[in-house]
Amino acid sequence: MTEKTSPSLTRSNIRFVLVRTSHPGNIGAAARAMRTMGYARLVLVAPLHYPHDDVIALAAGADDVLENIVVVPDLATAIADCRLVLGCTARQRGVPLPELSPRDGAERLHQAPPDDEVALVFGNERSGLENEELMRCHAAVHIPSVPGFSSLNLAQAVQVLAYELRLAALHGVSLLPPPLKSDPLATAAEMEYFFGHLAQTLIDIDFHKGRAATTIERRLRRFFQRAEPEQRELRILRGIFDDAQRMARLAGSKKE
Amino acid sequence: MTEKTSPSLTRSNIRFVLVRTSHPGNIGAAARAMRTMGYARLVLVAPLHYPHDDVIALAAGADDVLENIVVVPDLATAIADCRLVLGCTARQRGVPLPELSPRDGAERLHQAPPDDEVALVFGNERSGLENEELMRCHAAVHIPSVPGFSSLNLAQAVQVLAYELRLAALHGVSLLPPPLKSDPLATAAEMEYFFGHLAQTLIDIDFHKGRAATTIERRLRRFFQRAEPEQRELRILRGIFDDAQRMARLAGSKKE
Repeated sequence: MTEKTSPSLTRSNIRFVLVRTSHPGNIGAAARAMRTMGYARLVLVAPLHYPHDDVIALAAGADDVLENIVVVPDLATAIADCRLVLGCTARQRGVPLPELSPRDGAERLHQAPPDDEVALVFGNERSGLENEELMRCHAAVHIPSVPGFSSLNLAQAVQVLAYELRLAALHGVSLLPPPLKSDPLATAAEMEYFFGHLAQTLIDIDFHKGRAATTIERRLRRFFQRAEPEQRELRILRGIFDDAQRMARLAGSKKE
Repeated sequence: MTEKTSPSLTRSNIRFVLVRTSHPGNIGAAARAMRTMGYARLVLVAPLHYPHDDVIALAAGADDVLENIVVVPDLATAIADCRLVLGCTARQRGVPLPELSPRDGAERLHQAPPDDEVALVFGNERSGLENEELMRCHAAVHIPSVPGFSSLNLAQAVQVLAYELRLAALHGVSLLPPPLKSDPLATAAEMEYFFGHLAQTLIDIDFHKGRAATTIERRLRRFFQRAEPEQRELRILRGIFDDAQRMARLAGSKKE
């Protein structure tokens, strides 16, 4: 199953809007960031330098994003047909918008009625979004960075939100790849044979040297139980015990 | 409450390790990305171009990260005192490591015993981490990007992981009980000594019997890494190796 055959997984009607971006490299890097998470609709509002070689260079092959970039003069035009607009802010600015975490923001975008156009808006690298622009948003999304060094690079903010959007899309589908085919784990009975073999081996190689065996055996048991060995791993370990025992027999037999 | 007065919120013993980074700009951008989420410990393994103006330029003021960068020649050195090491990969490569989502990886790093040094490792932009380097990791972290365009920019991968770490830090303050006090885990350097001892023991007891050692050693490495032995457990196991080797010596010396 590829992304192309499962359009419902990634909403194609989510657009990323970059407002008054200063550095064209950030536009390219944002395009790449979106594309890694399956989003391809990028709208630029009054970019300072566009087109520009840095856009292509930093996009690292995100051609379908670049080819479909739309450039408009203001945010109102960029979001005219959108029914949900979230604005990303480094900090609230006297516009009392509901504030969402990236996780909740992504969830909200993804759960909007399926045919609705929705938008995620990012402001200028230095000045962010203007109050008039924030007022066009239904809620603000704030990435929880540390006080004192709170401003993420623009493209990295896009990456974090695109990542959360992908998680929201995958939610309900397992996030992890199918588990690596692995050998069956040892059964409890096999573990008991193993511990018996281990105990005998310790005796044969004179590990205890007169001390009580119990503490050591208990610690080893705890260790190997916790390790949850596969049957194959147990076989290797028991092969090691066999050879250690063989050496002990050879050593002992020479005592005569 | 600022970050400085609540040190327990952001673990200072989480280090980000960048291995064989090609583009110094990515180092700077990664430094910034870490810093926004409160992490300041960056280790560079054999960076291609360092120092470099692009590091400073892209770091956008993350001075405390830059001032404390450590440069080392290999990954073993970078993680020698770490008790948990997670490696970020775009894709698994035939090294059967447990695979974690960024969320679970961050949770695991954050929940390690509070005084443990832990590491998050990123490979070269093109080639990622080598198999030998992945084998030094306890698990792989995979950012769920789309098939067909799966490779995030290095600094953006750092940003996503740092972001998840911050969420884990913010989340864990209220919800998790203090971890059970347990013995300290073995460090990466102690594990390497252990594997060396194990390898020699296998030779001494004639385990391989003419077969190539590699597959067995790799399986045993995977098993013991996964088991996350405590220092004390390692000592017991190495004691067993010592006695097995002693038996082998006695057996061999009697051949004359």
